[in-house]
Amino acid sequence: MEDVVIRTLEKVELKDPILVEGLPGVGNVGKLAADYLREQLGAKPLATIYSKFFPPQVYVGENGVIRLVSNDLYYWKAPAGPARDLLVLGGDYQGISPEGQYEITHRVLDYCAALGVREVYTLAGFAQGRVVDAPRVLGAATDEARVQALKDAGVVFSRNDPGGGLIGASGLFLGLGRLVGIDGACLMGETSGYFVDPRSAEAVLKVLSKVLHVEIDFTALEAKAKEIDRIAQKIHEAEQRPAEAGTPSSPATREDLGYIG
Amino acid sequence: MEDVVIRTLEKVELKDPILVEGLPGVGNVGKLAADYLREQLGAKPLATIYSKFFPPQVYVGENGVIRLVSNDLYYWKAPAGPARDLLVLGGDYQGISPEGQYEITHRVLDYCAALGVREVYTLAGFAQGRVVDAPRVLGAATDEARVQALKDAGVVFSRNDPGGGLIGASGLFLGLGRLVGIDGACLMGETSGYFVDPRSAEAVLKVLSKVLHVEIDFTALEAKAKEIDRIAQKIHEAEQRPAEAGTPSSPATREDLGYIG
Amino acid sequence: MEDVVIRTLEKVELKDPILVEGLPGVGNVGKLAADYLREQLGAKPLATIYSKFFPPQVYVGENGVIRLVSNDLYYWKAPAGPARDLLVLGGDYQGISPEGQYEITHRVLDYCAALGVREVYTLAGFAQGRVVDAPRVLGAATDEARVQALKDAGVVFSRNDPGGGLIGASGLFLGLGRLVGIDGACLMGETSGYFVDPRSAEAVLKVLSKVLHVEIDFTALEAKAKEIDRIAQKIHEAEQRPAEAGTPSSPATREDLGYIG
Amino acid sequence: MEDVVIRTLEKVELKDPILVEGLPGVGNVGKLAADYLREQLGAKPLATIYSKFFPPQVYVGENGVIRLVSNDLYYWKAPAGPARDLLVLGGDYQGISPEGQYEITHRVLDYCAALGVREVYTLAGFAQGRVVDAPRVLGAATDEARVQALKDAGVVFSRNDPGGGLIGASGLFLGLGRLVGIDGACLMGETSGYFVDPRSAEAVLKVLSKVLHVEIDFTALEAKAKEIDRIAQKIHEAEQRPAEAGTPSSPATREDLGYIG
Repeated sequence: MEDVVIRTLEKVELKDPILVEGLPGVGNVGKLAADYLREQLGAKPLATIYSKFFPPQVYVGENGVIRLVSNDLYYWKAPAGPARDLLVLGGDYQGISPEGQYEITHRVLDYCAALGVREVYTLAGFAQGRVVDAPRVLGAATDEARVQALKDAGVVFSRNDPGGGLIGASGLFLGLGRLVGIDGACLMGETSGYFVDPRSAEAVLKVLSKVLHVEIDFTALEAKAKEIDRIAQKIHEAEQRPAEAGTPSSPATREDLGYIG
Repeated sequence: MEDVVIRTLEKVELKDPILVEGLPGVGNVGKLAADYLREQLGAKPLATIYSKFFPPQVYVGENGVIRLVSNDLYYWKAPAGPARDLLVLGGDYQGISPEGQYEITHRVLDYCAALGVREVYTLAGFAQGRVVDAPRVLGAATDEARVQALKDAGVVFSRNDPGGGLIGASGLFLGLGRLVGIDGACLMGETSGYFVDPRSAEAVLKVLSKVLHVEIDFTALEAKAKEIDRIAQKIHEAEQRPAEAGTPSSPATREDLGYIG
Repeated sequence: MEDVVIRTLEKVELKDPILVEGLPGVGNVGKLAADYLREQLGAKPLATIYSKFFPPQVYVGENGVIRLVSNDLYYWKAPAGPARDLLVLGGDYQGISPEGQYEITHRVLDYCAALGVREVYTLAGFAQGRVVDAPRVLGAATDEARVQALKDAGVVFSRNDPGGGLIGASGLFLGLGRLVGIDGACLMGETSGYFVDPRSAEAVLKVLSKVLHVEIDFTALEAKAKEIDRIAQKIHEAEQRPAEAGTPSSPATREDLGYIG
Repeated sequence: MEDVVIRTLEKVELKDPILVEGLPGVGNVGKLAADYLREQLGAKPLATIYSKFFPPQVYVGENGVIRLVSNDLYYWKAPAGPARDLLVLGGDYQGISPEGQYEITHRVLDYCAALGVREVYTLAGFAQGRVVDAPRVLGAATDEARVQALKDAGVVFSRNDPGGGLIGASGLFLGLGRLVGIDGACLMGETSGYFVDPRSAEAVLKVLSKVLHVEIDFTALEAKAKEIDRIAQKIHEAEQRPAEAGTPSSPATREDLGYIG
């Protein structure tokens, strides 16, 4: 079996497309943002990516039909105007071993390069370990010109953050991208790191939509953010209460939180 | 060494055969069911599957003769009538790494496809974390038509179960099968998840025998189920008793339970 | 880099040679026995086996010169008489991953088959979890004729031991050997499993020397066994004594024990 | 993706060059020494080494620009005189799996052999588990002549140290080097093993500069060593003080220590 199998669902011609990556990770910020972008733009399925470096797992839909875990590429053809064509990469998992991360990223970059991609934006969360009320968007890029352009768009480049660099797909798409002539940047939304964070995803998408010259309606994402706020508030209240016999609802609620989004 | 080595024991021509998979897993339900099916039908050995993704282990038979751990394919030629030819896959282990699971499943599917297989049923247990008196059989399938057909056969398709999808061979044979044109379904017998469960295997096999139009005598499996019941009861009683000095028999009995079947 | 690299040190012609394997494992019984056999026979180096499935490690000799960890094949040409030529496999490690175990064993078997090997004896310890005063030698073999022959030589074939089969090189050389037409048996010396056990190695070698028709002087091995007895006795006494302030010698002694042999 | 990717940055002709390896490890002694050597000599970048056996990680520079984790080869052309041309290998990580260590070392040795390398010095720390005031330099080599030459240069060859041999790149470059005709030695600076140790690196470099006939100014390294001494002293004092409420500065300081160098 090939290490990474890419099934093309539709043959398309794209004009100088930009790749946007958002896979599961800290606060699920990158995935939330990429999925929301794709939904709002009405991007269409282009290819499905399977790999032995993903878990050996299928998901079962509400209709009882299974699908193998995968990453997925969608495309969006920009209308006349300043925006460019887009490829949006999302999925169920990142590769589950370091080696798998390299193999999958390398193969997807190759595939995208063949489609004309020369530029990539990777979306991620940046765990602050504390509640973040107004998440900033931190950045890292493959070149200084891009750093400057993103600063102008409101992205924060901090001397100390992220201290240990970027680990996982969002870093690797930039690092391996450079080796094959694809430049780009990572946009990291600040988040607590304790639960999924649509508000941080919104902050990331607001910067990205400016950079990509696309318009996005944030209503649904804000609703999701409020739902999370509400649940977080309930948990907070439950934890403030003195421990009593029989409060099974609070752990259950906490669990709900993890699976939203 | 090849990743997966398949030794064909007998060359056979099969007519539109269906693959039935049952490997060790939750409650050993899948393995119990597949092994029982094979024994009752008098299926014959077709091929032995070795792999470096299995543990480096040999078993020693009662006669002192060793055999390398393996998976094993048996075939059964259906007599005239509604039933179709069958391949039954059983074995000692699933692949012990995610990557190994993919490689082995992929290779076995390839081998079976070459034998004409276009349809697969995978058998598994579904851990409920509590004693299950009358195990239901849950399902998941590769297409909606099959979901409907299985509902008609009494299989339960639940919106919430299995929540996290199927992990391991029973899911992967469906997920990778779809990629090579093999459709099918997974039948999951509810089980506590605490010990091997012939009663759950029986429930699964009852559905399967209906779907495959084969007749199976369940006497021996019911005897095994009663033996497990008896041991479980003894353990239960031992655990109800107040802790006393010197009750070494109860852990020993519990151990017995794990190795039956 | 090749997965397994075999460097031939001397080209030799052997007549129907038998392979004897003894690598580190339970009580180091197999390695002690194979090393002692090789030393007593004056077997000569034939080939060195390196692999990326061994630890990335070199040993430093007393003269300050390093050598990469390896397995090693020695050969012994039998004089006229009932004995046959031998290959003896020893080394620093077994492969450190299941996959590595398969790859190394497969490659070494291939190499030995090319030298004419059709028969293998693997040497190992069998952990009883209690002090064993007069270690029996348990057996497992690739065929019933060999089981019978070994019974006649005093080897014990037990219905229950080893219950879980053989794990590691000693099992795999038999299991994979069968696939390439090499038959043989495993001789397992009973041992506590708590420390290296020259007495168990001696029991194994006594059987093996009978089977192979070679004569071995056991004086040096018995001396080693007595040294272990003496240390074990000291540890035992130290542990019987009530805990006192300042008895640092006992752990140190225990450590000595682990490295002897 | 290739297991190990080496990007040549400049084509150079070197005359009988010697390879010096210093990667992260115990006390970071090897890396500190190799990096300092390279800086003091003004060695120039020759090649960058990427691998899927490194972590999937990019570092972000102070200017916000990322770079993929790597190992790096520098070259230095010796002026007329006794010194020979040098290659200096440094980097962010050693391979993160045993297999990866073998693959990377093998590939880099191949690359260096093609550049004419026949001799290698590997630099490392040797953890003593206690504060070392005047670190000795221990040695291990591929041949006895080299052992003698290094003894003459003040290197200590101890019968007992390092007892377990050398684990990781510093050992593997010698062990695999021998297999491809590259001889050499490892220089190990004694160190506590508790923090980065520029003083031990200095001891190693003093021997190495003698062996390589290069002159090095140790001023900057000594300044770094004093900085570490100062911080270590502060920690020591903090730990001598009785535990009080609110001394958060001491753990923070300890952390500083780990990242210097």
